[in-house]
Amino acid sequence: MPSSVLNRLTHVASHTRRKPKVVVTRDLGPEIMPLLQNRTDIDMVLWTQESACSRDWLLTNAVGATALIVLADAELFDAAGPQLNVVSTMSVGYEHVDVKEAAKRNIRVGYTPDVLTDAVADIAVMLALMAGRLARETTAIVNEGRWPSYSWAPFLFCGRQLSAPNAKTTRTAGFIGFGRIAHATLARLVPFGFTDCIYFSNPSSAPNPSRDAELSRSISNPNSPNGPITIRRTDELSTIASQSDVVFVLAPGGASTQNIVSTEFLRAMKSTAVLVNASRGSLVDSDALALALREGWIWGAGLDVVAGEPHIGTDHPLVKEPRCVVLPHIGSATFETRLGMARLAVVNALAAVDGKEMEYELKI
Amino acid sequence: MPSSVLNRLTHVASHTRRKPKVVVTRDLGPEIMPLLQNRTDIDMVLWTQESACSRDWLLTNAVGATALIVLADAELFDAAGPQLNVVSTMSVGYEHVDVKEAAKRNIRVGYTPDVLTDAVADIAVMLALMAGRLARETTAIVNEGRWPSYSWAPFLFCGRQLSAPNAKTTRTAGFIGFGRIAHATLARLVPFGFTDCIYFSNPSSAPNPSRDAELSRSISNPNSPNGPITIRRTDELSTIASQSDVVFVLAPGGASTQNIVSTEFLRAMKSTAVLVNASRGSLVDSDALALALREGWIWGAGLDVVAGEPHIGTDHPLVKEPRCVVLPHIGSATFETRLGMARLAVVNALAAVDGKEMEYELKI
Repeated sequence: MPSSVLNRLTHVASHTRRKPKVVVTRDLGPEIMPLLQNRTDIDMVLWTQESACSRDWLLTNAVGATALIVLADAELFDAAGPQLNVVSTMSVGYEHVDVKEAAKRNIRVGYTPDVLTDAVADIAVMLALMAGRLARETTAIVNEGRWPSYSWAPFLFCGRQLSAPNAKTTRTAGFIGFGRIAHATLARLVPFGFTDCIYFSNPSSAPNPSRDAELSRSISNPNSPNGPITIRRTDELSTIASQSDVVFVLAPGGASTQNIVSTEFLRAMKSTAVLVNASRGSLVDSDALALALREGWIWGAGLDVVAGEPHIGTDHPLVKEPRCVVLPHIGSATFETRLGMARLAVVNALAAVDGKEMEYELKI
Repeated sequence: MPSSVLNRLTHVASHTRRKPKVVVTRDLGPEIMPLLQNRTDIDMVLWTQESACSRDWLLTNAVGATALIVLADAELFDAAGPQLNVVSTMSVGYEHVDVKEAAKRNIRVGYTPDVLTDAVADIAVMLALMAGRLARETTAIVNEGRWPSYSWAPFLFCGRQLSAPNAKTTRTAGFIGFGRIAHATLARLVPFGFTDCIYFSNPSSAPNPSRDAELSRSISNPNSPNGPITIRRTDELSTIASQSDVVFVLAPGGASTQNIVSTEFLRAMKSTAVLVNASRGSLVDSDALALALREGWIWGAGLDVVAGEPHIGTDHPLVKEPRCVVLPHIGSATFETRLGMARLAVVNALAAVDGKEMEYELKI
């Protein structure tokens, strides 16, 4: 967007306060910004720099806003004022929005689930493969010029195979959290020969065997000699740990799931199994996982998220473990998906401004 | 295996020449070696060190052998002598065995296809994901301690999504070579939303539309809103290049496929597409691919094999390209699969020694 347009928008924003004011903390790119720029009946205030906006800028510009496309907490709600109608986040997680405070003040909250399901499920499968097949160690051998020093040997570079190597072998996938992303991940595992799925979900939620049966029917391959995939719910985390060949952590963050993958959990896992976390870093105890990898309790780990990110340096215990693949939280980072998320974040905010139903409104 | 046993075997081997002599150039481990050790009616000669055996050792010990579980050429056949009955390789490829010379001398050749199909198909999918999602660049950011210097931005670390992000989008897989590994790879792509497959295979082989229809039926998900996957054969490499979102190179090596992925091919590919090679390095022109990546003709590449391997140093043009993921030829490197290959290599050799049908005999 040319800066003359930005200047005009900022100018308009500061002089016509009767129009609803929408504060946007990121330039969402040429495909998405026209959704806001073309609305002459709103004032848009945009942080135009590449870096994150300062807290001061946000608190100052939130004053009088109807909609914030932004991270948000109580202080920001106070700064904005009582006319604030909606907070819209470009993410499926919402731990950075004070949703209780928002509910108390009748501020609606928009988020962007669904649209990132496939991108994250792809990363979950990629991490399961990379952790099993020693991708970090083997790519390092090539990238550091050490390949010439190895000669072929029958078991050189051998990893754990994600797929069942023959029809007599079965594979079990374990899920902590069993929402849309878990379902999409499980679907991808079917042609890898997975025949069994165990999941642990919020113990207060009611079991839903008919949903599970329908899921099994829709993702199973009727031509497989293995028959349909079995989907089982358990209330025992130890069952997930001890029976799974791959454990996928795909549950929301927050206090109730903090360090759900603990020393006890990791000690109960198979030594041939891998752990994948593509949800929030807070669900996995990093020190326990580093110890588990160092001592060989489990085969490997693939993480898209780490507690305390992005402040993860080379001295972090998980970065030091060669059996741990760590990605810088790129689960939803594809062009198609991020465009879809940006579009939804804007559309959610505008729907609330217009007093209409939002595509995705968080119901607490 | 304790060295006392090895000494005994070597001793036996050098004194009782009337039993068929089987030369094994690698210790195949405690699960497999008893298949040979328990055969009191054969002499086994085993190279017991971790490193590859010397040419001298091989030429000396091949003398009088009935079976070689080994790499093999004409000089070795001469050294062994006219009683040589079988050469058994622990691989699906056989470019390291002089098969024409073997045929001329009525030496049978055993190899190990099928058993590695799933392990290699897993690697093909892993490489497609890693190349699309910038796995080399993003893991380097974490491993080198650069994650803290990035702040979230809408399109930070964005890659190309392997899966179709919604039901309106389709994905096309292109295959150069369409044998068992390609079929297993395609099956894995179905739940990623692939609806279309184009393949190029040996132009002298007859089209087999009924095989393709049966393959489509067996791997498609009848519950998918996309309908069954379309499988099309083409004799035009340019069709593969220009229409595919991912090109998988899964054809045999040798003169007829040398540099089949050429400058011309790469120039015809989509700029958003990725190239995967999990067959033999000779099929891809390394310099052309490095240029394609540097100039952005294609999005990325994932290679399990590189021409000239393992002599690939940090100055290799592909190792220098951050959009190129290179693995040190680990396609079949899983414990399950390598054990299966070792077993087959031994069983093939013993079958020939016993004058029986081999599980997998190469027919030239």
